[in-house]
Amino acid sequence: MEQVTIKDIAKICNVGVTTVSRAINDHPDINPETKQRIMDAIREYHYFPNNSARNLKRSENQTIAVLVKGISNPFFGPIIEVLEREIIRRHFSFVLQQVEEEEDEVEAAISLEKEKRLKGIIFLGGSVHHTANRLRLVRIPSVISTVDTQIPPDIENCAVVSIDDEAESYKMVDHLCRSGHKRIAILTASERDNSIGKKRLEGYLRALKDHGISADEELIVRMKQDQRSYTIRQGYEITSRFLEKKKEFTCIYAVSDTLAIGALRAVIDAGLKVPEDVCIAGFDGLDIARYYNPAVTTICQPGEEIAAETVRILFDMIEGKETSRRVVFEGTLLKGGSTID
Amino acid sequence: MEQVTIKDIAKICNVGVTTVSRAINDHPDINPETKQRIMDAIREYHYFPNNSARNLKRSENQTIAVLVKGISNPFFGPIIEVLEREIIRRHFSFVLQQVEEEEDEVEAAISLEKEKRLKGIIFLGGSVHHTANRLRLVRIPSVISTVDTQIPPDIENCAVVSIDDEAESYKMVDHLCRSGHKRIAILTASERDNSIGKKRLEGYLRALKDHGISADEELIVRMKQDQRSYTIRQGYEITSRFLEKKKEFTCIYAVSDTLAIGALRAVIDAGLKVPEDVCIAGFDGLDIARYYNPAVTTICQPGEEIAAETVRILFDMIEGKETSRRVVFEGTLLKGGSTID
Repeated sequence: MEQVTIKDIAKICNVGVTTVSRAINDHPDINPETKQRIMDAIREYHYFPNNSARNLKRSENQTIAVLVKGISNPFFGPIIEVLEREIIRRHFSFVLQQVEEEEDEVEAAISLEKEKRLKGIIFLGGSVHHTANRLRLVRIPSVISTVDTQIPPDIENCAVVSIDDEAESYKMVDHLCRSGHKRIAILTASERDNSIGKKRLEGYLRALKDHGISADEELIVRMKQDQRSYTIRQGYEITSRFLEKKKEFTCIYAVSDTLAIGALRAVIDAGLKVPEDVCIAGFDGLDIARYYNPAVTTICQPGEEIAAETVRILFDMIEGKETSRRVVFEGTLLKGGSTID
Repeated sequence: MEQVTIKDIAKICNVGVTTVSRAINDHPDINPETKQRIMDAIREYHYFPNNSARNLKRSENQTIAVLVKGISNPFFGPIIEVLEREIIRRHFSFVLQQVEEEEDEVEAAISLEKEKRLKGIIFLGGSVHHTANRLRLVRIPSVISTVDTQIPPDIENCAVVSIDDEAESYKMVDHLCRSGHKRIAILTASERDNSIGKKRLEGYLRALKDHGISADEELIVRMKQDQRSYTIRQGYEITSRFLEKKKEFTCIYAVSDTLAIGALRAVIDAGLKVPEDVCIAGFDGLDIARYYNPAVTTICQPGEEIAAETVRILFDMIEGKETSRRVVFEGTLLKGGSTID
């Protein structure tokens, strides 16, 4: 008996299939002796309860890998859920691999390609640096998701699905300027950054310029590189240090909600009131920002829609269909109690 | 030339290895023409820059799978980071698989076992239900991590690393009772739950009993099953509904920090002051709770230590060494501004 089924076990034990299922699942409505007999048979005949539809899908050979940079970032959780659901729904296996902060995600991708079952790669988060030469070395279809980047036209098997980080950041800073702020500090990535931090800083600078405000280098507060980036703790520490310098400002704009929450707490701990003394704005639209006290004014990214579109485009490429190479979603400005209009 | 190396490319282009590396990594210090020549050679000779130590490790055959239930839960982020780092450090591959809320994680594990490269499984979160018959069907070593559960003694290839959820919950409720609270509402899992929610409820009931307080069914507030569990949103919605009932209470104890934050915001939105009108306590020790305004009194789990010990024990089992079958870490009561001593 090569592949024992649940029916075989039921027959061997002279019970129904439902009873076998009850034994396996510790259902209370089963005679303990019958249960024992069934479990003995299951072990003896090496039956594995693995013939559900879900499992059949899992055992198939074709795989999509998701390479995520910063899995602790709460922004990615709901996105990963949608990516997995959409990939499994298409009868592919889903593999999630973390990319370390200092690691190059394209190098990680190339090494994964040695797995011949791999049919597509999704880059979640990370650098926009890999727009260039390294990306040419990835030979299977890939989608860069949630990171707004330019792909050279000669790279034909790669697409981007994201918001326009520069434009959305402009939208937020434009709103803050229209509310009367002239001295807006920004919490952003280190100078070496080449990803969303840089793009959102560019949007900030352009909005200031359009409002006739000259940028002040002293109001550009950067994350420390010796710590995990985009954490609440980083936001708290860099804001605390900034406050000690006693610069003149009326508003802090953080390029992520995690940084904004750290900033809020640092401002409150310094004895200042939000929004009366300092207004604070974030970016991403995380639940923790919407439910903070006060709620954080933010740009909400449609993360789950971005995830669904990412998978759709990846499969278009895998199946050799014509598809978009670049999809840009729009963010939504959500106002909260952390700013005054 | 079967396997082209970076040295081969350097030789072909008549440059040094460093120059090839610079071309691949878009380093600014390289002559554009040289760079073009190198990239052309890389394509022509099918060179893959995949010989780093990290990549060698990745391409090896032995794999550890981490099955996580509720990847959106911010509690798991830092734990997954440590699990991956520790697994990679031991030269194994790391695969992360999400288990859907309604899915059985042991069934998922059994299906994964068909992969012959798989040497061990880590169950992160999820039910304690699989202590029983289903767990007997998993044939490779496994560790149940962060879920306090009893494993039958005849299952020899499975271990548990966690805090004692019942005792830690007792510790919190005992503290709240000592602070003078007699009417403590609890936010917990649905009645069908058989995991941490149930254990933490048991600790709450035992502490009340020891303080001579009879439990009031009306103060046991359960999560709705039609929504993702342990989210901030759940905490907000079940607390809002509870407040509408106008029950007498002085404190809300939520069995997770995410629920506690939702409760805090609901209480504040209802025009009540924390901690003056209502005290609120949580569980887990998440950053978002520590940085909330006010900081949430909570039980801090040593998540990263639990993760490191999980991997250590799993490899002991894989290597056939004698090892602990059960490691219990202690939680720490962290007081915040959300309660009054």
